[in-house]
Formats: sequence, structure tokens, C-alpha cells
Amino acid sequence: MRLSIVLFDGFTALDVVGGYEVLANVPGITTEFVAASTGPVFADTRRLALHAYRTLEETTHTDILYVPGGPGVEKGLRNPALLDAIRRLHAASTWTIGICNGVELLGAACAIQDLNVTTNWFARARVAAYGAKVGTARYQRDGKVVTGAGVSASIDAGLFLAGLIAGEDVAKTIQLGIEYYPAPPFGNGTPDTAPAAAQALVRAFEQHAPQRLESLQPAF
Amino acid sequence: MRLSIVLFDGFTALDVVGGYEVLANVPGITTEFVAASTGPVFADTRRLALHAYRTLEETTHTDILYVPGGPGVEKGLRNPALLDAIRRLHAASTWTIGICNGVELLGAACAIQDLNVTTNWFARARVAAYGAKVGTARYQRDGKVVTGAGVSASIDAGLFLAGLIAGEDVAKTIQLGIEYYPAPPFGNGTPDTAPAAAQALVRAFEQHAPQRLESLQPAF
Repeated sequence: MRLSIVLFDGFTALDVVGGYEVLANVPGITTEFVAASTGPVFADTRRLALHAYRTLEETTHTDILYVPGGPGVEKGLRNPALLDAIRRLHAASTWTIGICNGVELLGAACAIQDLNVTTNWFARARVAAYGAKVGTARYQRDGKVVTGAGVSASIDAGLFLAGLIAGEDVAKTIQLGIEYYPAPPFGNGTPDTAPAAAQALVRAFEQHAPQRLESLQPAF
Repeated sequence: MRLSIVLFDGFTALDVVGGYEVLANVPGITTEFVAASTGPVFADTRRLALHAYRTLEETTHTDILYVPGGPGVEKGLRNPALLDAIRRLHAASTWTIGICNGVELLGAACAIQDLNVTTNWFARARVAAYGAKVGTARYQRDGKVVTGAGVSASIDAGLFLAGLIAGEDVAKTIQLGIEYYPAPPFGNGTPDTAPAAAQALVRAFEQHAPQRLESLQPAF
């Protein structure tokens, strides 16, 4: 099976790599990184760059379409070529996985209307505006569409999808391989139970994320 | 503060990106990716490449030295230039963080003798051989050296170090930003309580990882 991970300027690296680290290790899956053009694509910090080596245009088909999120989503929503590619690849995919506010891109590509989905906690209203039924789960499946909550939820959503594709034993073995037995040093609540001060800070940070992204110089 | 993340052929991507996603978002930290030479560096699957934009040689100092693990560690242990750079940068760092079997590289660079450390569960004996006291914690601090267990533990170790550097409130805000409220779909035990069959599979996989790495064609 071909796993195509879509990169765009200003993606969030852990949105990508959490799910990648799980799915790329499923036997029989071949992973590729695709973007508008080949070469390094900068993450939201402008300090990390992942390499894309296939263009969206030359990607005519994939089995698993993987759409991450990040502050770059806002610009992505105004990019018809990106949305067209997502719509086209989703139409013929076996599975489509969206992480964080990358689920907005699936929404704009008409891939989640009437579906049960999850997303980053600050993107819930925007995703609902695309006609999806938005819950607060860490990962969610509806038909062939699997969605994950914010950033690090890509690991949970990836393991869940790995279980659907290859069975629970394979997924558990990968879980051991990546030692995913989390012990967050500052507890394990939910975004909705986080301190109000932290919620306000993160909301403010996220609101200005697209402008901040534009202001950051690429590292090279 | 400068955070220098060391890349080498055959690193494990989540070893890098889990901690990066936390630490790169600490106010005042500037992140860079360093390697033997600049350009794309391939992860262990040979399907993902992160871009290095500073050479180890020109990196004369860093505040936070970050050493990930992966199947490429075995080759790294036979690379005097890599070990010299780690030894040199560690000598003057404020913090040094090692993840997974990257802790072996710290061992070979004489950075963990007599220290309490953790590492990937399959690398414990090899790390102990460098004179470290190896525990089974998910993250561990001894002086300026913070170590993390396998792969995804880079997130926990990163949050722990972020708390040491910038205080618990900042670390909690970043935890919310990356929505690190994990809910592993197949439970949350420990590597030591994983099913024996999964342990045997992963051990076999890891034992042959360096040879497998050599057999994989780079994606581009």
C-alpha cells in the first residue's frame, strides 16, 4: 500500500511524524512525502524542513492519504491546487487520515461532510462549518476517514489506523517498537480541562499563528 | 538559547520530532539541525529526510545538545567525528538530552559515566556498559543530562526539560499546544509488560536494524 503524506509550507512537524512513525512501519506500506514541488518544505517554526520528493501533480493515486495540520493550513485553504489534489486523491483512496486542523483541509476538499470527525480543540467550530459532526475524541473513524485531535494525537490516530489496516497484533508490536507508553510529566487531562490561563495563551498563539509564520525567516 | 539537534544517517524520526516540537516552542530557544554535512539526512525508513543546515564542524558551541537514537546509532558508534563533536559540544552545554539508544552515543562520548539514565528498553545493557546506572524510567535527569526512553518518550523527556528550562507553566502551555493528552488505542502498559510475542518480534527487528538500514534504498 502507498502512504502519501502531504506537506505544505507551515505544517506542524509532530502532526506528520507521529503518524508516520507508526504507519511507515506497517509491513507492506511504502511511504512517500508529496508537496506542490519537490525539495525541503518548512514546518511552522521555519527551523525544521522535511523533504518532499514527489509533486502533488504527479501523484495520480494513493492508498492512504495523510493530511497534517499546522499554522500553514490557513494559506492552504486559499490554495486551489492543494485542495484539488486532496479532493482527487481522497476520491480514490482506501483510507484518508487527517490530523489536527488539517481536518479543515479535508473539509474544504469536501471529504468530511456529514461525517463524525475530531480535530484540534481550537479548530472545532471551523471544521463544523464544513458540515462535519465534530466530537472531542482523540481519534475518530467514520467510514474510510480517520481523524486525529491536535498534533501529538497523530500517534494515537496512527496506531488506531494501523490496527484497522494490519490488525491489533501488528499495531501493538509497533506500539512497543516506538515505546508508546506515555507518562506526561505534567499530567494527562484533556484540552478542555487545561487551566484557563494556558487555554487563553494557546488560543492567542494559534490566532496569530498564520501571521507569525509569515514573519519567520526560513533557517536556510 | 541555542538548541542543536544532531542528525545522522538512520536516525529515528520521532526520536527527533517529539522533543523538537516541545523544545522549539520554548520562548527564547532557537533550534537548528546539525549533521556531518548540510542537506537532507535520511531517517531509518529511508523514506523521510530532515534537512541539516549546519555542519558539526562549524558548530563550536550550543546551549542544548540533543542526540536522538535509531538504527543508525551502530554506525555512529564507529564514527569518531560524530563522537568527537558530541563530546566537545557536551563539555560546554548547559543541557544535554539523549533519547532512545542515542544514549549509547552519549556513552561512547563519555558523557554518562556514573550517571542515572534511561534508554530504549532493548539498549539498557549496552548503555550500562558505558558505566551509567540504567533505570526503566520514561525520562531521567542527572545533573545537566536528561535522557528519554524509546522513540515517543522524546515528548515526555522534552516536556520535562522544558519545565526545567522555562518553568512548569510554560511546559504545561506547550503540552496544551501539542495536545499531549495521550490515549493509546491499545492500552498504556510498559515495554516490560508487553506481550512476550511482541517483545520477541521487536527484539528481532531491532537486532537486524543496522543491516536492514543498509539494504534500504533512499527515497530520492
